[in-house]
Amino acid sequence: MSGIKEMVHLLGKGAREAATVLVSATAEEKNKALEAVAVTLEENTAGIQAQNEKDLAKGAENGLSTAMLDRLRLNDKRMKSMIEGVRQIMKLNDPVGRVYDERILPNGLKIYRMRVPIGVIGIIYESRPNVTVDASALTLKSGNAVILRGGSEAINSNLALAKVMADAIASAGLPASSVQLVPTTDREAVGEMLKMDDRIDLIIPRGGEALIRRVVENSTIPVIKHYNGICHVYVDSEADLNMAGEITFNAKVQRPGVCNAAETLLVDQAIAEKFLPKMLERLRKAGVRLKGCERTRQIDKSVEEATEQDWNTEYLDLMLSVRVVDHMESAIEHIERHGSRHTDAIVTENQEKALEFIKRVDSSSVMVNTSTRFSDGAQYGLGAEIGISTDKLHARGPMGLEELTTYKWVVLGNGQLRE
Amino acid sequence: MSGIKEMVHLLGKGAREAATVLVSATAEEKNKALEAVAVTLEENTAGIQAQNEKDLAKGAENGLSTAMLDRLRLNDKRMKSMIEGVRQIMKLNDPVGRVYDERILPNGLKIYRMRVPIGVIGIIYESRPNVTVDASALTLKSGNAVILRGGSEAINSNLALAKVMADAIASAGLPASSVQLVPTTDREAVGEMLKMDDRIDLIIPRGGEALIRRVVENSTIPVIKHYNGICHVYVDSEADLNMAGEITFNAKVQRPGVCNAAETLLVDQAIAEKFLPKMLERLRKAGVRLKGCERTRQIDKSVEEATEQDWNTEYLDLMLSVRVVDHMESAIEHIERHGSRHTDAIVTENQEKALEFIKRVDSSSVMVNTSTRFSDGAQYGLGAEIGISTDKLHARGPMGLEELTTYKWVVLGNGQLRE
Repeated sequence: MSGIKEMVHLLGKGAREAATVLVSATAEEKNKALEAVAVTLEENTAGIQAQNEKDLAKGAENGLSTAMLDRLRLNDKRMKSMIEGVRQIMKLNDPVGRVYDERILPNGLKIYRMRVPIGVIGIIYESRPNVTVDASALTLKSGNAVILRGGSEAINSNLALAKVMADAIASAGLPASSVQLVPTTDREAVGEMLKMDDRIDLIIPRGGEALIRRVVENSTIPVIKHYNGICHVYVDSEADLNMAGEITFNAKVQRPGVCNAAETLLVDQAIAEKFLPKMLERLRKAGVRLKGCERTRQIDKSVEEATEQDWNTEYLDLMLSVRVVDHMESAIEHIERHGSRHTDAIVTENQEKALEFIKRVDSSSVMVNTSTRFSDGAQYGLGAEIGISTDKLHARGPMGLEELTTYKWVVLGNGQLRE
Repeated sequence: MSGIKEMVHLLGKGAREAATVLVSATAEEKNKALEAVAVTLEENTAGIQAQNEKDLAKGAENGLSTAMLDRLRLNDKRMKSMIEGVRQIMKLNDPVGRVYDERILPNGLKIYRMRVPIGVIGIIYESRPNVTVDASALTLKSGNAVILRGGSEAINSNLALAKVMADAIASAGLPASSVQLVPTTDREAVGEMLKMDDRIDLIIPRGGEALIRRVVENSTIPVIKHYNGICHVYVDSEADLNMAGEITFNAKVQRPGVCNAAETLLVDQAIAEKFLPKMLERLRKAGVRLKGCERTRQIDKSVEEATEQDWNTEYLDLMLSVRVVDHMESAIEHIERHGSRHTDAIVTENQEKALEFIKRVDSSSVMVNTSTRFSDGAQYGLGAEIGISTDKLHARGPMGLEELTTYKWVVLGNGQLRE
């Protein structure tokens, strides 16, 4: 075994050992460990920031953009907010142990499903060091061990954070190996992680599409991923146009750089001439660059021509593609063809059409008369999220604590035999 | 594109189109299609059997074992049982559309999760042609399109069955491409299927470990798999020994060739000398070959020596490994180390120990005072199962109709905006 392979397998062994302890840790024990994490992060803020400075200096030297450097920076405010995040997670209900689907079978067997931790979760992410803390707190609270593989730009920050957390968890009586960071930025380590299916139960990649694609192609471990958010707002012929305007504006402008912001506006031809002129004017005033189909451009000549590529693009910016469609059917077809199954909304006063849209649009969140920006774990009341899944298996949409658990079947008998 | 690649992609396109129709098919429409399938299978029994004869002749020519040929054979009884299976699936509740987790958020948004079909499911299996019908009926009832890839030995039988089913489904007004079989046994076709992640949402392999391993290593599509069933019965120091004897015997002998049969008996040292002599005698009389640890062999000298390999083996036969353990803790460790996370049972009258065993043993089904043989979709009241998952994600243990669905989030507003 190469040194790296051996090292990764040792991490796997440690994580599996931690998982066998965490599986029966009580909510109190896990919260005690989280409180220790919060306190220790507070006490070690200066030391962590010193390590963060190393990453920042190296990043500047390597020509990272100002935006990248900003994401990397653990200033006081970020440290406070990370620590506050840990304390928020303490307050959430522990999903482990919840019993459901309880039944007595005709032969007297009592059967139910029980929520249990998944086991060992591998998280592969890019630059932001706050993921190191958020992800660790969520996996710990849900009774899982975690192996973290952060971006090379943040390696010193991540090592410092992970060490502080592991020490804190151990001081609270749970295994230090509940939280482990891969201590190298060598790519071979990721390859080894992704094949270690006897020791890791789930991989969650967080980052750009190239990273996620690489993980999916190389992993023999189940992966839950989030590719991108090409979200649509469809304004139906029977929409309240005032409401439609507010929702469109909110979905695009309120925070354009995130996955649940709208990228495409679909407008029913019946109300296009009435709705679009004012809407486009308002968007343009807010600095939104507009691209549109032929019919949109007939209504507003200063809209740029949208190419096929535009309909498939997550702008993450003050840009919007606009298409006039014949009817709801065409809107659903457009979403099926160009969407990313993240979040799509209809604005309509017609309840039947709303129900049809809900049924037919195959997205993780389908919304009626509200902004796609609500597609978010905190907004949905999940407390915190480890990501938003655009997959269909296991977890769809915002992934909270419950989605970091699985279930087992429990069967209680008094001597029943199979005939 | 090669011919095979093109063909597989056409199947994918057809399946995706069918899925967009099936997603909003009612239970009545789906049941009507299933009834048409049952009737058409009845009407075409002779024609199907003629194709089956071709496979049998070719199999005999190629030197398939008698057992293999028997599995392949679609005699009248098997045909009837397959058709009866379709009618049983008609009777099951349709999970699609079920609403749960309903809440009103403080801002007035109404939010719930709704069960929806997964979309397109690929099933890769080996010889038995009845899987072609069972899997199609289950996927159709749950609103999914299916792409079937059967074993080469059954290709003529499978083609005949799939054609009859597709015609029947079309005659009932649902898309013929709801059920499609890959019409070639070329391995390249499987490779293409496993990379077609834009058109297939889930792969379920059914067959031996080599097949499943190959699928897992090559798929970029999520896979739910069943490796094997190394199931344990642990007889605790506080067991009712009479009950323990009955359960052990049932778990091993009632049907040894299936995944939920016991492979290993773990016995607490405190009761080993009292329990084992009679137990081993009874098993031996039933034709069970016994392998044991040193302590077992001290109690019964005619037990063969178990090697490390035995603890990791799914015998699927009248064979049993027996180990005397120090206490429940050692039993749990043994299961953690050698089990396959399928089904494990404890026999004990001590409720606290039972709860500890339930919590700590990380298996899809954990049983108290009953036989591992109950680990089965039909026994659990799921009606029918497409397999038993030894994975932890999405579906664990028996997979019924509900496990062939996923959920979407539905958010209903009246103009709410994100601040």
